[in-house]
Amino acid sequence: MNAKLLLVLGASILALSLGGNVQGQQTPAPYVRVAEIEIDPAQLDSYKAAAKQVIETSVGTEPGVLALYAVAEKDNPARVIVFEMYADLEAYKAHLETEHFKTYKAVTLNMVKSLKLADTIPIALSSKPKQ
Amino acid sequence: MNAKLLLVLGASILALSLGGNVQGQQTPAPYVRVAEIEIDPAQLDSYKAAAKQVIETSVGTEPGVLALYAVAEKDNPARVIVFEMYADLEAYKAHLETEHFKTYKAVTLNMVKSLKLADTIPIALSSKPKQ
Repeated sequence: MNAKLLLVLGASILALSLGGNVQGQQTPAPYVRVAEIEIDPAQLDSYKAAAKQVIETSVGTEPGVLALYAVAEKDNPARVIVFEMYADLEAYKAHLETEHFKTYKAVTLNMVKSLKLADTIPIALSSKPKQ
Repeated sequence: MNAKLLLVLGASILALSLGGNVQGQQTPAPYVRVAEIEIDPAQLDSYKAAAKQVIETSVGTEPGVLALYAVAEKDNPARVIVFEMYADLEAYKAHLETEHFKTYKAVTLNMVKSLKLADTIPIALSSKPKQ
């Protein structure tokens, strides 16, 4: 392989890594769940800290946890919605068995007033490539 | 620059582009909304087709539309949840003015039985880098 070829290869890879695909990419169908959680308003800050910690640890260390997005409604901050994407059902089951998830459940047990967990069927999952 | 240096450079870029950062990345705080939509069960397939189209067009063509994820509850498929991430409030406002969004609204007007739109405050938004 000569230097010119390597340069072309390097440039191509660079273009790719810098977001060559600016069109919306279609994520291959993952296993998606939505959690709707009512938090005790008096413990909202503690709940948020625990949620943030388990989310970052899960996405950071579990290969099958693709994304976890937790948001609070602006008009009703004690209502939290978590949008969860796993590679497949097995990845979700494995997540439930991790120490960090069990710790989160134990720590937040008395902070959660109600919890609705929904299994879902994706209609469309489109996102920009991460820069 | 010699061939060896180019090879090292190419390999580094390749490692980066193939997901060198396997840790969960923290998305810079976007503007996030959640829509909860009840669809007329008789028109569910038509609604899904319209939603898929507007989502792919929006993420594919609008720079400020970061992600749109629409899912139907497995146990109640007429209940659709859309998790929406925009770069900022301006990007959301611009989205509402696009032809494709206006078309979607017009086409689905009589398919939607109820619509709850919530402005949210992100607690944690973690996702794997896209491969």
